Amino acid sequence: MASLIEPKVLKGFRDFLPPAEMARRHLTEQVEASFRSFGFVPIDTPALEYAKILLGKGGGETEKQIYRFKDNGGRDVALRFDLTVPFARFVALHQGEITFPFKRYHIAKVWRGENTQRGRYREFTQCDFDIIGSDSAAADFEILLMIRATLLALGTDVRIHVNHRGLFNRFLSHIGAGEKSVEVLRIVDKLAKVCEEETRKNLAALAGDSCAQKILDFIGAGGGNTEKTFEETLDRITALSGGPSPESERLDMLRRFMFDAGAADSFSLDPSITRGLDYYTGVVFETFLTELPDIGSICSGGRYDDLAGLYSKNRISGVGSSIGLDRILAALESLGKSPVAASYAAVAIACVKQECSGFYQALAAKFRQEGIPCEVFSEDTGGNLVKQFVLAEKKGRRWIIIPGENPPDDPLTLRDLKTRQNQEGLSFSQVLEILRGFVR
Amino acid sequence: MASLIEPKVLKGFRDFLPPAEMARRHLTEQVEASFRSFGFVPIDTPALEYAKILLGKGGGETEKQIYRFKDNGGRDVALRFDLTVPFARFVALHQGEITFPFKRYHIAKVWRGENTQRGRYREFTQCDFDIIGSDSAAADFEILLMIRATLLALGTDVRIHVNHRGLFNRFLSHIGAGEKSVEVLRIVDKLAKVCEEETRKNLAALAGDSCAQKILDFIGAGGGNTEKTFEETLDRITALSGGPSPESERLDMLRRFMFDAGAADSFSLDPSITRGLDYYTGVVFETFLTELPDIGSICSGGRYDDLAGLYSKNRISGVGSSIGLDRILAALESLGKSPVAASYAAVAIACVKQECSGFYQALAAKFRQEGIPCEVFSEDTGGNLVKQFVLAEKKGRRWIIIPGENPPDDPLTLRDLKTRQNQEGLSFSQVLEILRGFVR
Repeated sequence: MASLIEPKVLKGFRDFLPPAEMARRHLTEQVEASFRSFGFVPIDTPALEYAKILLGKGGGETEKQIYRFKDNGGRDVALRFDLTVPFARFVALHQGEITFPFKRYHIAKVWRGENTQRGRYREFTQCDFDIIGSDSAAADFEILLMIRATLLALGTDVRIHVNHRGLFNRFLSHIGAGEKSVEVLRIVDKLAKVCEEETRKNLAALAGDSCAQKILDFIGAGGGNTEKTFEETLDRITALSGGPSPESERLDMLRRFMFDAGAADSFSLDPSITRGLDYYTGVVFETFLTELPDIGSICSGGRYDDLAGLYSKNRISGVGSSIGLDRILAALESLGKSPVAASYAAVAIACVKQECSGFYQALAAKFRQEGIPCEVFSEDTGGNLVKQFVLAEKKGRRWIIIPGENPPDDPLTLRDLKTRQNQEGLSFSQVLEILRGFVR
Repeated sequence: MASLIEPKVLKGFRDFLPPAEMARRHLTEQVEASFRSFGFVPIDTPALEYAKILLGKGGGETEKQIYRFKDNGGRDVALRFDLTVPFARFVALHQGEITFPFKRYHIAKVWRGENTQRGRYREFTQCDFDIIGSDSAAADFEILLMIRATLLALGTDVRIHVNHRGLFNRFLSHIGAGEKSVEVLRIVDKLAKVCEEETRKNLAALAGDSCAQKILDFIGAGGGNTEKTFEETLDRITALSGGPSPESERLDMLRRFMFDAGAADSFSLDPSITRGLDYYTGVVFETFLTELPDIGSICSGGRYDDLAGLYSKNRISGVGSSIGLDRILAALESLGKSPVAASYAAVAIACVKQECSGFYQALAAKFRQEGIPCEVFSEDTGGNLVKQFVLAEKKGRRWIIIPGENPPDDPLTLRDLKTRQNQEGLSFSQVLEILRGFVR
């Protein structure tokens, strides 16, 4: 006998057994239904692209993490490490075929050769959604509102923290620290992860003690901030940045939209939100579950003014976000809100005599026609039906239908596997009526 | 300005723009709904695996086609080239966690560095489904019936050609050609692609003129075969293989199941179906669209008796199949049965004044709550609503709702973009009632 190959998966990669895969599918289907209800449409792009396209200007960190190799034709290729870069390439390539404003979503796997000791996976699913080709505040608002609607549909309450990168930069210019904007934004972005003193020290080293204090005041650090509303905070940071500006007016318009849409309670203006990436130029935001704020932002994003600059001369602006499906799934589970069915079919038909399997399938087809998924057992277990009851329970079925000795004419028995009660002598319609009361 | 990177995709890879991606999603969702209604559950496995696991004993053809490389940790890895090998590895690894019989499906991408001149893609989606851990004829039948039900649900009529590899082998032993079984089956498998004379020549070279004639008679080549029914063909090949056997009895049981399930008209017994792969040991089948038989089999498979032999000492038998989603999609399109919506939302809300966007979103939320997907436009086009009508049509919307100057109190106007008729002065409920009549 040939020696066996050990069956194993690569470190950082995962198999999904049915319960886990059904939970992921269910979440994805709910998220997609919400996106579609807003008129968003899906796209897909290849897993493998030219390395040059994915790496763009090249970045040290990205280059170390990427799965990159030469294909059989000697091309320098790589697996995508996010969905943003392929989207930029996609838009540059297909701009003539797209109707703008373009509202798209993309849910797909990405790969990163990260150090798995940090508890990260090397293969995971990303979910991005954007509106491109619109500069309007209404587009900013739609992305924010869609995040809220989608997470509410999942049964979780959220608080979305909003800020405006442009207004932050205006404030920095106003206090004479405009040139150091990129570094300041990066330091502030880490505030939630390090202590305030550390942030103060880093800011002071960069811009001096006085600026550091002004920046800390602006972002509302130190607990001295007693504002309760979006409006109060907006008034304060508008004044600190030198008075009304297009950026403060955009935030004010968003505030009004939130109010008119009856959604104001879900939003805060939080001047400490900056998002680390240089990419963003306008509104930025992070999303927290009100019941589990400590897991951090589960959905972040913002407005950018040049999506595809690496690949196209046309400046394409937009606003978009990425939702952390894995993190939401874990959060829903820890909140006991995981909407997981043990199986898609609550009903099984027992195999009383294997030679009657054609009739059992015909019976199952009648239930399926009525919208009731239904498994047919294919092994007659030598007349020992208890074995089939056990199997049905293991597979997460709630009901088992036991056909008579002479199908299709004999009446049916319906067993409730939870109460272990049988109801005998039933017609198809009677079974259907009982199941309809229980099976969605 | 930095030079641009040309946006392009690798040869053999594809972007999917929304219309194509929506069509693919729709098809996949219909197929999954059918599988789930039979109690089948999904799994997922990594795109990347150890090359050794994917290549198994190694095969010349596979090795040339595979995307194989060293990862950053120096591991010899490869992208999966099908879903069968990862499933075998999956079952070997998780056999202790699986409840048998195990009915699973897996829809995912696979990658092959094939010569794209043959019109094939290097990245494509496979859709596999199997019942493992059951030897019963009822399991064979369920796979056959699920193929039929799934394709009928897609609006296409099918004919499934069934045979039994074991019965073919029994016949070959009976005529003294048992040792040449593998080669004979491969020659016969190519019958549909080459002419009968070529097949006769190849068979004669392998097993002599007399055997060649007997094999051609058995498979019913040459048009001398006037049988009309499964039963008649079964009687003939049972006699030719030396009388009743477990294999002929299994086919007879399947025949009976087909009849009892009211599905007999969809099946033929076709002794020329052998499937090329050594892997199959029992029932084998191919599926043809009755309206487009010439595109070849769109769903093939069979029974095997040792799924995971490379990775596990336990023999795990099963029956399974793979459905060609890309080919079905192309077929549905050419039949004019492509169930493609131009978008998921048939309704748009016009942007009359941008500062009212909060009210527009609140209105949209009310429609979504009633199950009506609804896009909100975010650009007010300077009071020129015709631009928005054109945009809505381009995006595949059927209706556009025009809010009044003073939302939310002003009545609504509903424009039918097909008839170009407006209905004015409507309440939310009146619009809802009209849309309900048109929007699913």
